[in-house]
Order: sequence, then C-alpha cells, then structure tokens
Amino acid sequence: MNTYKRIVLASRPHGEVTPDNFRLEEQPMPQLQEGQLLVRNHFLSLDPYMRGRMEETKSYAAPQPLNETMIGGTVGEVIESRHPKFAVGDKVQGMFGWSEIGVSDGALLRKLDTSRIPLSAYLGAVGMPGMTAWYGLTQIMKPKAGETIVVSAASGAVGSVVGQLAKERGCRAVGIAGGAEKCRYVVEELGFDACVDYKAGNLQDDLAKATPDGIDAVFENVGGGGFDACLARMNPFGRIALCGLIAGYNGEPMALHNVRAFLTMRLTLQGFIVSEHMDLWPQGLQELGGLVASGKLKFRESVAQGLESAPDAFMGLLKGRNFGKQLVKLV
Amino acid sequence: MNTYKRIVLASRPHGEVTPDNFRLEEQPMPQLQEGQLLVRNHFLSLDPYMRGRMEETKSYAAPQPLNETMIGGTVGEVIESRHPKFAVGDKVQGMFGWSEIGVSDGALLRKLDTSRIPLSAYLGAVGMPGMTAWYGLTQIMKPKAGETIVVSAASGAVGSVVGQLAKERGCRAVGIAGGAEKCRYVVEELGFDACVDYKAGNLQDDLAKATPDGIDAVFENVGGGGFDACLARMNPFGRIALCGLIAGYNGEPMALHNVRAFLTMRLTLQGFIVSEHMDLWPQGLQELGGLVASGKLKFRESVAQGLESAPDAFMGLLKGRNFGKQLVKLV
Repeated sequence: MNTYKRIVLASRPHGEVTPDNFRLEEQPMPQLQEGQLLVRNHFLSLDPYMRGRMEETKSYAAPQPLNETMIGGTVGEVIESRHPKFAVGDKVQGMFGWSEIGVSDGALLRKLDTSRIPLSAYLGAVGMPGMTAWYGLTQIMKPKAGETIVVSAASGAVGSVVGQLAKERGCRAVGIAGGAEKCRYVVEELGFDACVDYKAGNLQDDLAKATPDGIDAVFENVGGGGFDACLARMNPFGRIALCGLIAGYNGEPMALHNVRAFLTMRLTLQGFIVSEHMDLWPQGLQELGGLVASGKLKFRESVAQGLESAPDAFMGLLKGRNFGKQLVKLV
Repeated sequence: MNTYKRIVLASRPHGEVTPDNFRLEEQPMPQLQEGQLLVRNHFLSLDPYMRGRMEETKSYAAPQPLNETMIGGTVGEVIESRHPKFAVGDKVQGMFGWSEIGVSDGALLRKLDTSRIPLSAYLGAVGMPGMTAWYGLTQIMKPKAGETIVVSAASGAVGSVVGQLAKERGCRAVGIAGGAEKCRYVVEELGFDACVDYKAGNLQDDLAKATPDGIDAVFENVGGGGFDACLARMNPFGRIALCGLIAGYNGEPMALHNVRAFLTMRLTLQGFIVSEHMDLWPQGLQELGGLVASGKLKFRESVAQGLESAPDAFMGLLKGRNFGKQLVKLV
C-alpha cells in the first residue's frame, strides 16, 4: 500500500445530504515518527450526530471542517508501531474518521479485547451508541421496575440497547420504529413488550394501546409527531432523555405541540451528549460488555462494503433505511 | 352579619373566561361547632393557576367543582373561635376561596406575624407566589454568581421575586414584561439589569441585546414566542424552570419551535408545582420573610375592591392588565 483512501467533506448540505457533499481522495501513506502507530481501520461507524457536524451552526461541537476527513469512530488493527504500548496486531478503537487508515500517538486510543466481544460491537452496543443508551436510561430516565418506558428509533443502535437495558431492570419497554419488519424484530428478537409502527398511520392510538398505564420515561431519538404522542401519554413526574431529533436534521420544522404536558405532569426533559460524561464510561461499558459477551444483549448491524459506500449508507441512515447499527466494512 | 357573600364557578369557560362563568351568592352565616373557628377574609389572592382548575381536563389537580366556592388563597382575621389554639384577632392564612368568610378546624391554617410584614404580603412575596419563585430559582435554575437569568411576566407576583432573588445571588437578571411602564418598574424599582417589552415588537433583537453573554437559566411563566426567543439564546447546560404557560390557558396553540436547542445546548427543562414541595416552604419563607421585613425585597400589588370585583380582576390578570400581585380586598 503506497496510498490509502479517505472521504472529506466537500461542501455543506442545504437541506438533505447529497453525494456531492463528499469527496473520495487518495492520499500517500504517512511515515510514522517515533511514538506513533499506524492503524488499518476494519469498520467505520456511521451515526446521526455526523449530520449535525456537517452544518456550520452553533452546536455542542465545532463543525466538521471542509476538505478534511469526515469525523467518525473506527475499530481496526495496528499494522505498524513505533509506540512502546502498542504492538502490531493489537485491536484498537479510535476516531480516525472516514478513512482506511489512521495515525495516532496513542492518546484517545482504546485497546480492545475481542476474545468474547466481536470487534464491530465496540462501535455499537459496547461503544458510543451503547453508552448513549446506558447514560440516558440510568442517569436521566432512572426507571423503576414496573414503569413503562418508550424509546423511538427502537431498532437502531441506541434504541435497541435502551429497551433491553430497561427490560433488565424490570420495566415495560415499548418501542417506536418505522415498518412492520423493524417492529417485529424489536418485539421478537430484542424482547420489547410492544413496538408501535409510526408508518402505519395510527401513532397516537397505537401508542395508547401499547402503554395502557401511561408512560413514565422516554428516550427520544427522533422528535416530531412521535415525541408529541409520547408527551400526551406521560404520567406525573415523567422523565425524558433527549438524545436526538433526527426528524429535523435537514432543517425541517420541529415544533412541539404538547408543551402543556411538561407543566401539568411536572416532567423533566434533559438533552445530553454522552461524550461529555466520560467518567461514567467504565461503569457503563462494563455492564454492556458483560451483557454482550453473555449473549443477553442482542444487536443487529447493517454493513456497507468499502469506504466508497459510506456516503450512500450515511444518507440511508438519515432516512431510516438501515436496520440496526450502520457500519462500513473497510477490510 | 347574618349572611356572607361568595362566588362559585357557574360554568366552565370555552376559550376565554367570561363573567357568566361565575355567580355571586349570598349564604347564611355558619354556626361554629366545638373545635372550629370563623375567619373574616381581608384579602383574596388571584392567581393564574385558577384558570387551569376551571377546566375539566387531566392535570395536576382535580378540577374546581361547579357550584362550589372558587378556590383561592386568603388572609384574614379570626372573628370567632371555639378552637383552643386560635383566638379572636389572630391573623391567619388559609384557602377559603372567593368568599368573605371561612370556617376551619385549624388544619392547613397558618398564623401570621404582621408586626414586620404586611398582611397582604403573605399572599404574595411571602406566600405561594414567593415560594414558587424561590423553589424554581433555587431548586431548578440553580444560578451561579455572574450567570444571566431571564424571567417572563417579570413584573408579576412570581417573576418580580425571581429576579430579585437572582440579584441577591450575584446574577444578571433580565425580565420580559408587557409594556414600557412595567419594564421601567422592573428595572428602576425592582433592580433588574434589563427588561424586554414583548409588546414593542422586537422581542428577539431586544432579548439578544439584554443578554449579551447568552442565557444560563430561565423562569418561564408564559410560553409562546418569549419562550422560543429564550431557547435561541441559551448557553450550554442551561436550566429552565417551567412554572406556567399563561399564553395558552385559553386553549391557544402553544407550539414550541426551537426544540433543537434542548439537544444542542444540553438543556434541562423541569415543570413544577410548588405545593408538592411543602418540605422546603419553611426554608424559603424564612429567606423571603427576612428580605421583605428588611425592605430588600420589593413588591407591588393591584388591589380590586370588594368580592364582586373578583371576576373582572381575574379576567384582567389573565390578560396581563394587573401590575404586580393581584389581590381582592374584602374588608
């Protein structure tokens, strides 16, 4: 290999993301300096937060710079090392972005044990998405056994973990997902108590049937009509962990109508970003890793082949075309 | 006095409250039984929460029953007592409603010291409105010195206390109020740093000028456009105490548009009802009472004369025609 491929942000989207927002580039292989190591990325993680980074607006993170490698979490293998703590063959997780390789000085790099947990799971249930679910559930929703929790995008990388962790804690777990197939998976494979198909056109009635005792806590990934339908079913002192508003990521109006419920039901809503709570990652990852290793925590992956497929897979993710955690296989 | 007057809820409003929702009644004076006492109410408190009770919808409290005395806080004087702990002449606070008199067995009745605090203040800054301000500020907004807080309905019974307590804590306090006169009062009399007149037509620009460092915490009484304007100015980890949504009390649409701010700024929103936190009242009332007695906490009252004026005064309150705490003087 004398060169490697990467994808940079070529332009910012106006509304929907389009293929020409990205550009595939071939780069010369870097030369390692003392204290550095070279990683061949095996999997790239595609996540909704990337859509926000493509904008230039005020948000929790700096915008993705133009003409630089698109941000993203990766797992891979060390193929060359001039770093005392990393050896060729080590499996590592990093933030090397949409790129076949990455160079690191070891900072922010995490060595992975793949003896009981598959490499790709460190980008999903035992990685950032799993931690996002764990944080929102345990720190904001704080559900008690017997309570009803609802999670949107329930078949996705985050939502699927939220519901399974809630079941572990003795809750009634209800999902919202798009399409009968995803809903069947959420109930039959993941073990949720019910799943409402928002594409079926009876969201409010179906949610009412699925939550006969009301809703005590919500994990919100989507926003829009599903969020409003949940607000209308909240019990007093309900908690809402706001993780994403994917329905509005292209600038669609995101008005919330059932605002009175916050007052009449004394609800608490909290927006959060899991990367700001690194102190809790060891605790969360221990629980998640144990559940994945023992087969109790199930997950599903949509795997696109080759770096070139990343833009298409990402656009599909934003439209809900993925089914489970969206990955790009690079090797 | 062989009879006394009271006002009952005659019908529920459809949209705006109208005079025929109320009915003035003359009742025979009650005969006291052993263990009871009779109170002549001097002041009746009019508060926005009463609008919610007039509805029959699911909320935090049971609806006001038809044909019974309208709910309300009162202060007055014991005029007859067959209760060992209350003597004629004692000043008391109770929930006797829109009525010239009240009979009690002493439960939920609070004896008042009017040597340093005027009787009517126990319905305002040293009563439920003051406690509402204190709870929202200290338990939800938790402002640090140097932070900017914004409160809507800033010249009102609750808002005026929020801003003054925030100033005591070293914050920049910014009010939102309707009209130049109220805004002048909020800044010049109450000592807020700035006040935005939402009727002037430049709410967003004026709020931006008044909050050059953004907003760290909001006390929301109104909802609607002012709330959205605040959301657009929030700093990371901002806190919002949701106390009221008076702009939507007649069933007006109350959509919130800047929902993304909750996520991008990792905001926390909490709705609350101060009567559910009675454990904190002694602590809060001690601070409020001390500040009123020493003249540091200023307040203003709109006083309507006579029980018959209560419906009009209440309808004015819902339209913001009052200036400060709305009371009805009954004696």
